[in-house]
Amino acid sequence: MAEHVRVVEVSPRDGLQNEAAFVATADKLELIRRLAASGLRSIEATAFVSPKWVPQMADAAELFPQLPRDDGRRYPVLVPNLQGYERAVACGVREVAVFTAASEAFTRKNINAGIEESLQRFEPVLERARADGVAVRGYVSTVLGCPYQGAVPVSDVVRVAARLHAMGCYEISLGDTIGVGTAGAARAMLQAVAGDIPMAALAVHFHDTYGQALANVFACLEAGVRTVDASVSGTGGCPYAKGASGNLATEDLVYALHGLGFDTGIDLATLVETGSWLSAKLGRDSLSKANRALHA
Amino acid sequence: MAEHVRVVEVSPRDGLQNEAAFVATADKLELIRRLAASGLRSIEATAFVSPKWVPQMADAAELFPQLPRDDGRRYPVLVPNLQGYERAVACGVREVAVFTAASEAFTRKNINAGIEESLQRFEPVLERARADGVAVRGYVSTVLGCPYQGAVPVSDVVRVAARLHAMGCYEISLGDTIGVGTAGAARAMLQAVAGDIPMAALAVHFHDTYGQALANVFACLEAGVRTVDASVSGTGGCPYAKGASGNLATEDLVYALHGLGFDTGIDLATLVETGSWLSAKLGRDSLSKANRALHA
Repeated sequence: MAEHVRVVEVSPRDGLQNEAAFVATADKLELIRRLAASGLRSIEATAFVSPKWVPQMADAAELFPQLPRDDGRRYPVLVPNLQGYERAVACGVREVAVFTAASEAFTRKNINAGIEESLQRFEPVLERARADGVAVRGYVSTVLGCPYQGAVPVSDVVRVAARLHAMGCYEISLGDTIGVGTAGAARAMLQAVAGDIPMAALAVHFHDTYGQALANVFACLEAGVRTVDASVSGTGGCPYAKGASGNLATEDLVYALHGLGFDTGIDLATLVETGSWLSAKLGRDSLSKANRALHA
Repeated sequence: MAEHVRVVEVSPRDGLQNEAAFVATADKLELIRRLAASGLRSIEATAFVSPKWVPQMADAAELFPQLPRDDGRRYPVLVPNLQGYERAVACGVREVAVFTAASEAFTRKNINAGIEESLQRFEPVLERARADGVAVRGYVSTVLGCPYQGAVPVSDVVRVAARLHAMGCYEISLGDTIGVGTAGAARAMLQAVAGDIPMAALAVHFHDTYGQALANVFACLEAGVRTVDASVSGTGGCPYAKGASGNLATEDLVYALHGLGFDTGIDLATLVETGSWLSAKLGRDSLSKANRALHA
């Protein structure tokens, strides 16, 4: 039987959060419904953050209760602190994601707190989640480079990832936020983190700014990772990186995984339709090459 | 000292050959001049083919004599047969490339001859080249799939590549013409061919139809290949593959190679400028993500 790779779809949150024009809640729900229909089983649905900072996610409390319950899928949501966690859980959320960075400079600019302070901010979230039986995923961003400090020592990635894992995150997603990393560095970083945390508790999250995302995923699959984040049609992008061209496109990833002989449970044709549908809604071409090749 | 990877730039030929609007000879020369200035040392300059079949290359005999001589660079040209070879050599060409495919169906459609017949057609070319001291590169296309016959057995790739090598080609470029292959298949194919031909005599040539090209290159670099074909800004594309989105972009490749610690002799900034210049000439956006991220 083919080995399984779990794809964590982040388009409804990471993919849309920087869209200038507000995407209607009904469209977001339709996106999630289509993603689920393609076979995706982990779909990051929204973020319970301040609408002042991320206006696109202002409808989180309206959106989440309209998602299906008990359909066997996970719909994690991003929360920045205990207040966001409480709002989320009040809406019925059963999985949350917390986020910090491996770069001190990035954390200060991005969430106005040092790494240590950001971790301390999440401690009560993790504590409450444990009591509530809510799963927590941890994001570490800037794992292969930072727009402010440049190089990020691997030892800093290991330290922050290990802290989040020790605090109770069931999985740590290692993100190359600005997409500067190449395959050798990605693999070395993953292997270093896997020295401290079981590989089964690690995920990789690449942005395709320099066209390196899929090569980086391949290097990390070879090193043993079996969970990969992606965003349909390559939506998303980091506002802090010039030319940032979004996340790894889920269509290209799934095409690769199936070609490599992995099972994903995802129907590529349905996924491609979903990516095309979203691109049309956003009024632009899909950034996924597999999408452009396969779209009917 | 960093290990060297040789990049073979194919934009003036493979990149431009399917452009509908004729690119002026002066612009082609300017492209080649800029590519050379970026540090590229192997630049496929044109093709001595029938202008009936490839009108874009109709100016080969006018273009080639205007290229620099003795600048330490190689300017191979494609030739389909002895007649093309003779025209090329009369213009001062010192390196030619011949081409066939690993798929019988593709060869018949593409050059109206079976694989065996195409090889026989090249025998007098190889013989004459040996006598003339002209280097010959051999292309094998459809190494990971064919638009007509579908799957292509690896044994067919090995057989055709070995024949070209035995006939005297100093290097065999293995091409995934329609870009359907993924990293595991690319590596397995390369390793099978390397069982019969020294790895140092092999090159890989990927199209990015499904976004897999750079991951495929990485897998092949890991397996030992040290020569990679690419086309600046991802120009090119196979008219037989729906949605075919051109060659691997040289900018993305060079970004990856430098990140992996390889020496290429190429200045990425100059290459990016060249890709932007060409994209502007062709009136479209660069298909290279590194280009879009780095273009000033």
